[in-house]
Amino acid sequence: MAKGELGNPKGEILNADIPLSTRSSNVPAVTYTLEHTDAGCAARVGTLSTPHGEVPLPTFMPVGTVGTVKGLTIEQVADTGASIILGNTYHLALRPGDDVVAKLGGLHDFSGWQGPILTDSGGFQIFSLAERVRITEQGASFQSHIDGARLSLTPEESIAIQEQLGSDIAMQLDHVIALPAERDVVADAMLRSVRWAERCQQAAKRGDQSIFAIVQGGLDAELRRESAERLVELDFAGYAIGGLSVGEQPDEMYECLDHTVPRLPTGRPRYLMGVGRPEDLVESVYRGVDMFDCVMPTRNGRNALAYTDSGPLRLRNECHKIDPRPLEEHCPCPACRHSRGYLRHLFTAGEMLGPVLLSIHNLTYYQRLMTEAREAIQQDRYTEFRSKKLAGWAATTAAN
Amino acid sequence: MAKGELGNPKGEILNADIPLSTRSSNVPAVTYTLEHTDAGCAARVGTLSTPHGEVPLPTFMPVGTVGTVKGLTIEQVADTGASIILGNTYHLALRPGDDVVAKLGGLHDFSGWQGPILTDSGGFQIFSLAERVRITEQGASFQSHIDGARLSLTPEESIAIQEQLGSDIAMQLDHVIALPAERDVVADAMLRSVRWAERCQQAAKRGDQSIFAIVQGGLDAELRRESAERLVELDFAGYAIGGLSVGEQPDEMYECLDHTVPRLPTGRPRYLMGVGRPEDLVESVYRGVDMFDCVMPTRNGRNALAYTDSGPLRLRNECHKIDPRPLEEHCPCPACRHSRGYLRHLFTAGEMLGPVLLSIHNLTYYQRLMTEAREAIQQDRYTEFRSKKLAGWAATTAAN
Repeated sequence: MAKGELGNPKGEILNADIPLSTRSSNVPAVTYTLEHTDAGCAARVGTLSTPHGEVPLPTFMPVGTVGTVKGLTIEQVADTGASIILGNTYHLALRPGDDVVAKLGGLHDFSGWQGPILTDSGGFQIFSLAERVRITEQGASFQSHIDGARLSLTPEESIAIQEQLGSDIAMQLDHVIALPAERDVVADAMLRSVRWAERCQQAAKRGDQSIFAIVQGGLDAELRRESAERLVELDFAGYAIGGLSVGEQPDEMYECLDHTVPRLPTGRPRYLMGVGRPEDLVESVYRGVDMFDCVMPTRNGRNALAYTDSGPLRLRNECHKIDPRPLEEHCPCPACRHSRGYLRHLFTAGEMLGPVLLSIHNLTYYQRLMTEAREAIQQDRYTEFRSKKLAGWAATTAAN
Repeated sequence: MAKGELGNPKGEILNADIPLSTRSSNVPAVTYTLEHTDAGCAARVGTLSTPHGEVPLPTFMPVGTVGTVKGLTIEQVADTGASIILGNTYHLALRPGDDVVAKLGGLHDFSGWQGPILTDSGGFQIFSLAERVRITEQGASFQSHIDGARLSLTPEESIAIQEQLGSDIAMQLDHVIALPAERDVVADAMLRSVRWAERCQQAAKRGDQSIFAIVQGGLDAELRRESAERLVELDFAGYAIGGLSVGEQPDEMYECLDHTVPRLPTGRPRYLMGVGRPEDLVESVYRGVDMFDCVMPTRNGRNALAYTDSGPLRLRNECHKIDPRPLEEHCPCPACRHSRGYLRHLFTAGEMLGPVLLSIHNLTYYQRLMTEAREAIQQDRYTEFRSKKLAGWAATTAAN
C-alpha cells in the first residue's frame, strides 16, 4: 500500500501483519459454477465459491459502506438471507483507514461478518462523492468529501487497500464518467479502465482474493463490446458492468445489458454494479446477470418506504395509522411481526427502530426475490415469474 | 377516558373494543411472593406475578418510551435478559394516542412485547417535560412539549389512559415537585398525591391491571413516613418511591430509602422510580428495593458510554482506536462480539449501529447485575457482593 495516499492519509506505519500469500494463477480464490440456464431466457443459476463460503447466484449484496449495513447487527443481516455483503473501499480508507481495519484483523473480523465480502475499488465514489477530481493516466487525485484533504488513488493503491481490507473479491479501479458524454470521452475512459484493469491484475498479491474487471463504454454498444472483449482477453475471475444507473432510462440500461452480457464468458459471474429497483433486478437476471448491489433497500427503508409484491408502501401516510396488517403477509422478517400502524408510529415519532425494521424488511424482500428467482430458473419458468412480478409491482396500490 | 383530554387531543371517538372486566378486590392482577431476605441486610428476592408472566425481583425495567426501547427490536430487548418493560403514558397519549394503541390491540400487541409491562402515570413527565403547568386539586393542566396544545390530566384520566394501553401495572398520578422546596410545599404535594392515589384506585375498572401507589415527601423523613402510612392503609398491589433522582445527592437518596423502605409492607413489591446508575441499584437493593427503571443505560449507550465492572468506557476516546478487546470479557451480548476499535469507529463515523450495540450492551449489563444480585441474596452474601461491585466501579480505569 502506498503510504500517505488514500489508504493512510496520515502516513502512519502500523505494520499490520496480514497474510500475503503468493498469487497462484491456476487456483483462483473465487470460482463460479454454472448450474442451470432457464430454457426460455438467459437467466441462470450458479454458485460462487469464495474463501469465506459459497454464494448461490443470482444474489443481492447488501451495502455495508463502512463495515456496517446501517443500523443492523451482523445477525440481523444474516437473518435477511444475505450470503455476501459489499464494503466501500473509498469510505473505509478514509474512515477508519484500511490500516486500522487491517490491525483489527481485516474487514471480516472488523465487521464481524464471516461470510464472503466484495469490496468496490473507490472509482465510483471518487466520481460521485469526491471534490475537485483530476484523472490522469496514473490515477485519480481528489479532495476527501469528509475533510477536504487532497488524496490520490491509483489502480495499484486501490488493490493494496483492498488487500489490507482482505475482501474475497476486489474490484479493479475504473474511470467512471457522467452520461450523456461525447463518444471520444466515453471511449477514452473505457480504454483507460481497461489499462487500469491490467495494472490491478499485475499489482495483486493475495492468493485468497480475486479481482473482478469492470466493463465500461456508456450506452454505446460498440464501446461496450470492445471493453468486454479486451477485459475477457485478460481473464478475470468475474466481470462487472459499470457506469450504469447514473441517470439513464431503465430501457437504455436493459438495452445496454442486451449488448454487453452476451460478450461475457458463461463460465464467469456477471455483476451489475449499483443496481437497483426490484424491477431492475428481475429484468437484469432475465438478461443473464448474476450479482447486484444497491443502497435502495436500506436507504429507502430509512425513509419509510417498504417494498412489497404489490409495490412500495409509504409508511408515513395517514392511511396506515390504525392498520393492523403487516407490511406483507407471509414475510418472515421481524418488521412483519408488527402492524403497519405501529411502523408508521415509529416514523412519526422519529424512533430509530423504524429505519432499522424497514431496512430489515426491504433487505429480506430483496433476498426473497432472489431466492424465488433461483427457484423459477431451476424450473424453467423465469419468464412467467418475471411477468408476474412486474404485473404485481405495476398494479395500482390505492392504499399505500 | 375523558375524550378531548390528554388521551385523545383531537376528540375522535374510535370505539376501541378493549375488554373491561370488573375489578375484583380479592384477586389482584399483580401479586408479589417474597422468597428470601439476605441474612446480612434488607436485600430480598421474590417473584412478581402478572397477567403477562412472572418477573424475578430485584429487576431493572428498560424504558420503552413510546412503545419501543430506542433502536432495539423486541427480540433484542428480550435477549438482554429483560423480563418487564416500562411504557410512558404521557408520551404514548400524545403520540400516537392511547386510542390508536387500543385500536391496535393495546400496548402489548402494539409494541410486540408480550411480557409484563408497567406504565407510569404521566406525573413525572408533566413535571419534567410539559410547559406552563398548573396543578389544582382536580388535576394537572399543561402544554404539550410537542405542539404546545393545552391539555389536562386528572387521576381518573391517567388510569383511563393506562387501561386503554392495557399495561399489567398502572401507576397512580402523583404531584411531582422540584427539590429543594419549602416543607409546606412538599407536604402539600405529598398529601395531594395520597388523595390522587385513592381517586386512581376508585377509578380503576380493569381486572387484569394493578395499580401501584407512589410515596412522596421529598427528603423529609417525617413526610415520607406519613405518605407511606396513608398509602399502605389504602392497600395497593405495590409501592413506588417517587420524587427522587431529581437533583439530590446519592447519599441523600440512600438516607431517604433508609427512612422509607421500612414503612412499606414486606408482602408488596417496592419500586424506586427513575433510578439510576449501577451503584444506585446496588445500594438500593441493599436497602430492600425490588424494581427500577431508568433511561441511563440506553441514553448513555447512544452517547458512546459503555458500562463495565471496571467502570464506564467512553468509546469515542482515541485510546480505543485499534483495541481488539471486547467491552467486557465474558459478556454474552452482540456488542461484545466486536472489538472496542470497531465500536469506536461506528461512533466516529456516525453509524446508527453504534447506539444500537451500546444500548444492548448496557441493558445486558444492568440485567446481568440484577441476576448476580439475586444470586448473591439467595446465598446470603449480598453485602460482600455490594462491596466488590462498588470497589470495581470506583477503581481508576486509566484506559477508558
